[in-house]
Amino acid sequence: MSGDSFGKLFKITNWGESHGPAIGCVVEGCPAGIPLTETDIQPFLDKRRPGQSQLVTQRNEADQVKILSGVVDGKTTGTAISLLIENNNNRSKDYSEFAKLYRPSHADFTYQQKYGIRDVAGGGRSSARTTASNVAAGAIALKVLQRANIEILSWVDSVGTISAKIDADQVTEALIESNPVRCPDLVAAKAMEEKILAIRKAGDTIGGVVKCVVRGAPIGLGEPLFDKLEADLAKAMLSINASKGFEFGSGFAGTELIGSQHNDIFYQDENSQIKTHTNHSGGIQGGISNGMDIYFRVAFKPVATLMQQQQTVDTSGNAIEYHGRGRHDPCVLPRAVPIVDAMTAIVLCDHWLRHQAYCHS
Amino acid sequence: MSGDSFGKLFKITNWGESHGPAIGCVVEGCPAGIPLTETDIQPFLDKRRPGQSQLVTQRNEADQVKILSGVVDGKTTGTAISLLIENNNNRSKDYSEFAKLYRPSHADFTYQQKYGIRDVAGGGRSSARTTASNVAAGAIALKVLQRANIEILSWVDSVGTISAKIDADQVTEALIESNPVRCPDLVAAKAMEEKILAIRKAGDTIGGVVKCVVRGAPIGLGEPLFDKLEADLAKAMLSINASKGFEFGSGFAGTELIGSQHNDIFYQDENSQIKTHTNHSGGIQGGISNGMDIYFRVAFKPVATLMQQQQTVDTSGNAIEYHGRGRHDPCVLPRAVPIVDAMTAIVLCDHWLRHQAYCHS
Amino acid sequence: MSGDSFGKLFKITNWGESHGPAIGCVVEGCPAGIPLTETDIQPFLDKRRPGQSQLVTQRNEADQVKILSGVVDGKTTGTAISLLIENNNNRSKDYSEFAKLYRPSHADFTYQQKYGIRDVAGGGRSSARTTASNVAAGAIALKVLQRANIEILSWVDSVGTISAKIDADQVTEALIESNPVRCPDLVAAKAMEEKILAIRKAGDTIGGVVKCVVRGAPIGLGEPLFDKLEADLAKAMLSINASKGFEFGSGFAGTELIGSQHNDIFYQDENSQIKTHTNHSGGIQGGISNGMDIYFRVAFKPVATLMQQQQTVDTSGNAIEYHGRGRHDPCVLPRAVPIVDAMTAIVLCDHWLRHQAYCHS
Amino acid sequence: MSGDSFGKLFKITNWGESHGPAIGCVVEGCPAGIPLTETDIQPFLDKRRPGQSQLVTQRNEADQVKILSGVVDGKTTGTAISLLIENNNNRSKDYSEFAKLYRPSHADFTYQQKYGIRDVAGGGRSSARTTASNVAAGAIALKVLQRANIEILSWVDSVGTISAKIDADQVTEALIESNPVRCPDLVAAKAMEEKILAIRKAGDTIGGVVKCVVRGAPIGLGEPLFDKLEADLAKAMLSINASKGFEFGSGFAGTELIGSQHNDIFYQDENSQIKTHTNHSGGIQGGISNGMDIYFRVAFKPVATLMQQQQTVDTSGNAIEYHGRGRHDPCVLPRAVPIVDAMTAIVLCDHWLRHQAYCHS
Repeated sequence: MSGDSFGKLFKITNWGESHGPAIGCVVEGCPAGIPLTETDIQPFLDKRRPGQSQLVTQRNEADQVKILSGVVDGKTTGTAISLLIENNNNRSKDYSEFAKLYRPSHADFTYQQKYGIRDVAGGGRSSARTTASNVAAGAIALKVLQRANIEILSWVDSVGTISAKIDADQVTEALIESNPVRCPDLVAAKAMEEKILAIRKAGDTIGGVVKCVVRGAPIGLGEPLFDKLEADLAKAMLSINASKGFEFGSGFAGTELIGSQHNDIFYQDENSQIKTHTNHSGGIQGGISNGMDIYFRVAFKPVATLMQQQQTVDTSGNAIEYHGRGRHDPCVLPRAVPIVDAMTAIVLCDHWLRHQAYCHS
Repeated sequence: MSGDSFGKLFKITNWGESHGPAIGCVVEGCPAGIPLTETDIQPFLDKRRPGQSQLVTQRNEADQVKILSGVVDGKTTGTAISLLIENNNNRSKDYSEFAKLYRPSHADFTYQQKYGIRDVAGGGRSSARTTASNVAAGAIALKVLQRANIEILSWVDSVGTISAKIDADQVTEALIESNPVRCPDLVAAKAMEEKILAIRKAGDTIGGVVKCVVRGAPIGLGEPLFDKLEADLAKAMLSINASKGFEFGSGFAGTELIGSQHNDIFYQDENSQIKTHTNHSGGIQGGISNGMDIYFRVAFKPVATLMQQQQTVDTSGNAIEYHGRGRHDPCVLPRAVPIVDAMTAIVLCDHWLRHQAYCHS
Repeated sequence: MSGDSFGKLFKITNWGESHGPAIGCVVEGCPAGIPLTETDIQPFLDKRRPGQSQLVTQRNEADQVKILSGVVDGKTTGTAISLLIENNNNRSKDYSEFAKLYRPSHADFTYQQKYGIRDVAGGGRSSARTTASNVAAGAIALKVLQRANIEILSWVDSVGTISAKIDADQVTEALIESNPVRCPDLVAAKAMEEKILAIRKAGDTIGGVVKCVVRGAPIGLGEPLFDKLEADLAKAMLSINASKGFEFGSGFAGTELIGSQHNDIFYQDENSQIKTHTNHSGGIQGGISNGMDIYFRVAFKPVATLMQQQQTVDTSGNAIEYHGRGRHDPCVLPRAVPIVDAMTAIVLCDHWLRHQAYCHS
Repeated sequence: MSGDSFGKLFKITNWGESHGPAIGCVVEGCPAGIPLTETDIQPFLDKRRPGQSQLVTQRNEADQVKILSGVVDGKTTGTAISLLIENNNNRSKDYSEFAKLYRPSHADFTYQQKYGIRDVAGGGRSSARTTASNVAAGAIALKVLQRANIEILSWVDSVGTISAKIDADQVTEALIESNPVRCPDLVAAKAMEEKILAIRKAGDTIGGVVKCVVRGAPIGLGEPLFDKLEADLAKAMLSINASKGFEFGSGFAGTELIGSQHNDIFYQDENSQIKTHTNHSGGIQGGISNGMDIYFRVAFKPVATLMQQQQTVDTSGNAIEYHGRGRHDPCVLPRAVPIVDAMTAIVLCDHWLRHQAYCHS
């Protein structure tokens, strides 16, 4: 059973391979009457696209999105929205070498074994290029969420062992975008940038963590028992290429606390809103948003493609040596930021629509 | 849109509240012809049930499961299996105090706000009691997985700041069950036990981490782009009450490595199987199992119910004091182990069936 | 992949076999705050249950429904509602004869071949007894629809070649229930009753057609391209045991008309509502309700169990003779009426909730 | 909740409007390793496309399909297949007149009311043009079914009151395609052709019935309780534009029979296969295929667009007159044949894959 769709009321179906003629997705469930043009989507793709800075791959992909359906006279019609991004350099290179081997920590081996066939060029379906379509879909989800005044901000929280020190309440889009790492702690950002450049020079790669905060989410998003808000966020995040972990609120560190430290004490604020003094819950209690900021962190491994010699096996199992080539990211983190934003928006939009069905019935 | 179902081919639909007449679930998609009786399921419920040791709640719940459908003459028929567990002490106490307040870090507030109504007794639907049904369903999933020689083992990896030192390859069911903490590092287990008893005496609670390993999973489980094996595991784990995070393979620690340290180098073993020397991938590459052991960790927060005085608000927002009562777990970890086992089994069984559909077509 | 669930926002998961300990279903997606007790459901089960009149099977099944979850203090909580109906006479008879043969036009052969095993007693899962759970779920759907002033009425439109002559606008619940056939044309009802009694005396059975009208459905229900309202109604109706066909609006007879006869001409009524003079569309245009009455017809075959000698084969394929026994319906139509009502209510409720998600977003 | 997807294991997601830049669909769940190129799909589109004969609309649509993903080196990879068909004449005409009125028995009124906006050009999303994508997807399903030697044949069974007299066992693809009506009874075909031409000349339209037979389906397809094979076929057929009814096996006529006439008596044939003498069951018993030919009929109403003056209302409800223009089908039946073929193939392929998951587990 194919797993190319995500979401229940706001649903995306992703298709396409790295070096095929195009990639894209179909967005179902976008409400009617929302203003939407390609220019609403393009800035998000530009954040994800290669070649933005020295820190990321220097490949040249324009990533121009086209809306093929679901919009008339600049407004959504409530019907399926088809998004298409052409691949510029499709199948231009010779991939015959890759066809004969399994690159370490890539999906070459598992795709070949599972399907008995794989699209070798650029990793085919397993390429992170497929996330561009999700970013485009996420831009539409964000348009829907703007109606509800929900804001999503992600940033690079750590690169290797360099961690940002950030008051999440003070983070702004401008601060995140003020540097190529997308880290709002400018001191850490500088150190991260230097680290990434050094790693790149060494032909190596490095991992890190993205943090995301959702502001303005209404109370009530999340559908227990299984579609708890954090459960769907976790699934969304772990579906992103190279992600290795998810934690929300106090996360793994919270396991070291005792209950009297960890519990978030309720109080009523001056606007008669019930809030909590601390937010170890990360804005979610019992799987349902409680009106506080939702926040979580996503771990990303170092990119598997190295610009150095590595041992591996060919498709017959013989030991061989292999050297990565082409233009790859030394660190996926800066480009992961818009992907985390997008997947978060898709989850929130789905749950927001699900909530509408019941709170109005 | 209700979120009470989980899985696509092997699907469970969970129902019931903590203090209603019964809880249960319907299991759809179990293949026909599998030997199954209540005695296959009961041992897993016994691992989860209260009152097993000093470390967990002393509530008395027999948790006797009944199979109401889908089995004839001791074998599954391929039709929906209905499981029911009666609640012994339902609605016996006076919950009028709880009806008027929101317990800190519980779901009282969010359920009330989302639904405009809540079942106060024992937390109703938000109670971890609902996981008993999942454990029962997981026992059925395990029966299916046994056919494919897939084995699942979970254990307590840390309690507070006490971490086990464990060679995952050496862990056995017997070792896990040799102590009430369910930690196969017996030295750590002793320290954890003492810690939990001290915490309990203080009327407090403590968190920790469960680790899980899946042995014998065939190559090919997982359905990209979104239903990657780790993505569905993450969702399953984050749907468990009190869970705060999920990481697989190298996880969050792996983000501090560089690519040349992190990549898992392929080799061919003496049986002509392609394997990897290291397993930072946690047995999953590109969302698909690669034949190595699958392993992951799940963070659990300290239980929110404390046997001590806490500040909170009543349902009108007025500040009040509240003191937990009843018999609650000082540490959820030992009882979380069979729940992690069960949810893992459900995910694996679902993906194993999904894989059958295609590898035979 | 099991097909025991139906619906998307309002979803039922049906379980149980004819002669197991119980049957039941889980209803997900019922909005919170709806008054609900067993006495809201029981009258619908009483309409479906055996032994109501001479026209139907004389089996004695009390069909007492229990609500096990999802309701507190007489109101729905928005969480899964579990319904259970105990089977009284489970496995009391000797079914060893049936185990060795395939009854003509029953599901014995296909279940055995598909699953390699079957529950012989009373037909197991293939028994129409499973529809009792759907009727109970439909009663809940009707409670939801009452909020929206949607009314559903089904009746027997024909038995064999005897057709009712009915002005659908004049049909009332009282008129339908005024006779055991459930046909509001009292002259036809009398003829149908005599026909059924004669057929029963002959040890034979007879088919017929149920007609259903939905009054008060708002404009906008139905989700093209595939979840058109008529498509989901068709699926619901064809999932009922013994059903052979579905037509809405002008149906099969409409294929003999030309467009200028068939088109429904719009006009504006005195309340500024846009309506149509005729209603060949059956209240649905382009898959979406248009505010006119929705009506459709469902064909039911003659019951397969005859009280007479028939040829068939045993499970080894040898020709044998077989004589039906027990107490069976000579005509399923009177008891099909509440089932059609229920499945219609479930479809309407599902689409009504789906519509809420978008019309409020 | 959007209804643009159909199927569970073999799933299509349809997008696009009549006069947008393109239409298309994403096919998920096609097994890997199946030979597939555009030339496998194009002949099916050519059967559906306008301008084939005098009997259908004379619009010029090339309907050239492009495969954008999921195929490498002429074989399916097991990942999502994206199909795209460009619209040639998109938005070339002036549709401002249509924007102001509701055409009788079209979806103009219901789309406008449901979504508050509609794509006026060519009917937008409600146009039967969207079925071209389904036909393309059906061609892929047919490739999968060929592996299992399953054959699907549809033909025009009646036009208005002219019915074909056909022995379904003798029908061949060649016989169906031997005349522009697609009716294998050549005498009836001639009469139908004359009738359609006369109707066209009168500026009117006419309905009819398509019959479909599935040969070679293995025993075991269909997933009770709700995803019975006939239930999913009914949904598929009623989702086709202009369809009004579905019946399988003996259908509505079977309701006039008594059980002793209607029951299909089992026997064992010379190859030790258990078969039935008659086939009133239409190849499906208890929702599961029994190995006999599956057959059913689908009713189609006369096309709503007439080349004559009609009364209607404008969007403000004022009575106006309207005259259809452009090139429309006088009878949808000949072009409905490949659509019925395609939707049948999609349902069968989905159920065939679902069956694989369990019969191999």
